[in-house]
Amino acid sequence: MQNLTFSPQSGAPLYRQLYEMLLGEIRCAGLAPGERLPSRRALAAHLGLSLNTVDSAYQMLVAEGYVQAAPKSGYYVCPQGIEGLVPPPESPARAEDGPPRPRWQYDFAGGGIDASLFPLRTWERISRDVMRGGEALLNPGETQGEPCLRRAVARYLHEYRGVRARPSQVVIGAGSETLLGMAARLLDGRKVAVESPGYARTAAVLRNAGLQVCPTGVDQHGMRVSGLEPDCCAACVTPSHQFPTGVTMPAPRRAELLQWARAGARTVIEDDYDSEFRFDGRPIPALQGLDGGDRVIYLGTFSRSLAPAIRAAYMVLPERLITRWQTLYGDYASTVSRFEQHTLSRLMEEGHFARHINRIRSVYRGRRDALVRALEQALGGRAQPLCTHTGLHMPVRMSNGMSEAELVEAAAAQGVRVRALGAGRPDQPAVVLSYGGLAADDIEPACALLARAWKK
Amino acid sequence: MQNLTFSPQSGAPLYRQLYEMLLGEIRCAGLAPGERLPSRRALAAHLGLSLNTVDSAYQMLVAEGYVQAAPKSGYYVCPQGIEGLVPPPESPARAEDGPPRPRWQYDFAGGGIDASLFPLRTWERISRDVMRGGEALLNPGETQGEPCLRRAVARYLHEYRGVRARPSQVVIGAGSETLLGMAARLLDGRKVAVESPGYARTAAVLRNAGLQVCPTGVDQHGMRVSGLEPDCCAACVTPSHQFPTGVTMPAPRRAELLQWARAGARTVIEDDYDSEFRFDGRPIPALQGLDGGDRVIYLGTFSRSLAPAIRAAYMVLPERLITRWQTLYGDYASTVSRFEQHTLSRLMEEGHFARHINRIRSVYRGRRDALVRALEQALGGRAQPLCTHTGLHMPVRMSNGMSEAELVEAAAAQGVRVRALGAGRPDQPAVVLSYGGLAADDIEPACALLARAWKK
Repeated sequence: MQNLTFSPQSGAPLYRQLYEMLLGEIRCAGLAPGERLPSRRALAAHLGLSLNTVDSAYQMLVAEGYVQAAPKSGYYVCPQGIEGLVPPPESPARAEDGPPRPRWQYDFAGGGIDASLFPLRTWERISRDVMRGGEALLNPGETQGEPCLRRAVARYLHEYRGVRARPSQVVIGAGSETLLGMAARLLDGRKVAVESPGYARTAAVLRNAGLQVCPTGVDQHGMRVSGLEPDCCAACVTPSHQFPTGVTMPAPRRAELLQWARAGARTVIEDDYDSEFRFDGRPIPALQGLDGGDRVIYLGTFSRSLAPAIRAAYMVLPERLITRWQTLYGDYASTVSRFEQHTLSRLMEEGHFARHINRIRSVYRGRRDALVRALEQALGGRAQPLCTHTGLHMPVRMSNGMSEAELVEAAAAQGVRVRALGAGRPDQPAVVLSYGGLAADDIEPACALLARAWKK
Repeated sequence: MQNLTFSPQSGAPLYRQLYEMLLGEIRCAGLAPGERLPSRRALAAHLGLSLNTVDSAYQMLVAEGYVQAAPKSGYYVCPQGIEGLVPPPESPARAEDGPPRPRWQYDFAGGGIDASLFPLRTWERISRDVMRGGEALLNPGETQGEPCLRRAVARYLHEYRGVRARPSQVVIGAGSETLLGMAARLLDGRKVAVESPGYARTAAVLRNAGLQVCPTGVDQHGMRVSGLEPDCCAACVTPSHQFPTGVTMPAPRRAELLQWARAGARTVIEDDYDSEFRFDGRPIPALQGLDGGDRVIYLGTFSRSLAPAIRAAYMVLPERLITRWQTLYGDYASTVSRFEQHTLSRLMEEGHFARHINRIRSVYRGRRDALVRALEQALGGRAQPLCTHTGLHMPVRMSNGMSEAELVEAAAAQGVRVRALGAGRPDQPAVVLSYGGLAADDIEPACALLARAWKK
């Protein structure tokens, strides 16, 4: 393997060059059938590459059948040899677009959405218009975001989510993580409660902002207020649709949480990440609207309602924190391109956004129905979908005798990725199915594979 | 003044409300002609507003002639009274697009660039193309940024800045502040040296990331390595063009700084914010290229080379920090829209970017020449421009007997904003003229006003 040399001139990404070199070695039997490949770590260290790069190359070789992964043991050249194995033609788009993701046949843990629903033509038309508007938008914009977009967001949140916000309270940022990281430094202390189970990323962002994270239990009403440590200065919650348990926080628990915040001059950070997708019954207004507007920082995003590639999210600050925000960040540049902010604002102001949300809500409602039906057909009484009324993921409680780890592994062996619920109830094992990224036609075959995985 | 009450419902930004209230007071002679306004600090403290807010309101009043600034003494209601002074009609476009910037007649402290130089038509054409490429770009992209853009940036930096970087070391982010904030958490300690005088924003970002900032003196060779506190784990520098003194760090000082970093396993953060604009002589390669690539985090931005509204910057991490970066941020979404990343990448790959840089460098060289000439004509020997060989700002040393504060205030009284150098040398007072945002035709009249301000 020592004759691997990289040619930075080639322009191909390193993982791809590595893949091709390894493939060359296999082809000319420098690596013989059945032989073990160097461990990923060793190869990465030897070549000075990142583990990710090596990983991507190995995964491509596995996906294409040249190499087999043996659990806990390593990677081996396919013992059948490679005669007759013709590499699939690599589409230029993929080579261009980066390392291949692991090729799950069906992925219920990706958290994606169906990109084909994006109103691309409208977006393109408005963008073009905005760019023609031209030069004025090339100068620095406002730190908190363009006033036109802040107004549109405030109006939308008021109308659809019952949020009470003046445009001056709205901050636009390049994704929820960026905004949460900024919000973290507005708090009055260093300990913050997060939901357990909950979004791993929320905890990671808070930790990266230098805060100490206190995992706090979740029951069928959401975060257990009685379980909150008294020295927490804030709690991060997903009251509309708890991730991953799917529960919606009922009014008494909301009141209790706000009371906790008021009593200790604490802050509630409400992450309303997918409230657009309420399929049945009336939408529950945001927690922020219940409050005097004083204790809650509200977070929302366009990642799910439009597309993950549109890097725009919004935050509503209570009035009391605006001065602090300006003191810390008043000198920063906004993190979102002004072109995109104006495009978004017109999408909202001209009614396209509301129509788009209505349309995709009905599409996803159909997917939800299809998934519930397909699970029933494939697994019958062994699988019980929970909290299916809202959002793009549902927990499914399983009663086939398998543990959560066994359920995840058996599904993976069938090429299907699911996530364990991880609620710490071994007596009630459950997995989480995020179906936003699954095409309609994939739902039945994916459930058929799950039935095979979980037939025990 | 105690009857100032704010109406947060009005939707108008606070500084504007304050401006209007003060104007009301002046109009109804609650503040009489010739009367002194409260000091900005006192008013900010009294009303709980930021100094910036009060400053903006005062500046608007000055710009519109209601109030006069008296050097070192404060702000006074215009003694002539305000009869006949009609407030300029507020254009709706301006109200729409956010707070009016203080109406300086000429602004040498804005840090802007000339937006009319942006290759808008090419950008628009490529964007359209990229969007037509369509759906694939709507799914989540890679955390570090699109591979095509990272390749293009690595190649560009290698060719033009002597930076040694594999695409896997490049991180794309929504502005230098976003990237510096992330980089801050990769360091091995909590104390970081910054240049003094230096970019206030750099210090603010580091402080917001929870670090302690140690201002370290700058001499004619840049940051004084001998002045570095030994327990600093990193130093942030602008070696190509120190802000604001304008000096370029010579090779021996560079070697000394790298030696300091190596000896203590420390990190140098090199902010190469405007190195595209070297007008005379050969460009000095980046510090990063002198290093084994191990000690330097390199930062650059498209804000100046393209437009502040394009929220994209890049960072090159040493290999040793990539794993740490992935551990902390591997789960984050990229902060830049994939559409914009692909547009940028094609702009670079197709050669438009390099051509654009060449074109604007020559435009700005012309502006620099015009500014030096105009200063000479207007001020003669009293004004000595320094470090004019590179970048979009130049310090000007003054020998007319005025202090830096007097220079700034006298210029402001003529409607011209300049920044004090603030290098702590009262014997060598100097101001900084950032001329990137000034149109060619504005240079002479701006210097004529400066001559009037500084005729002493």
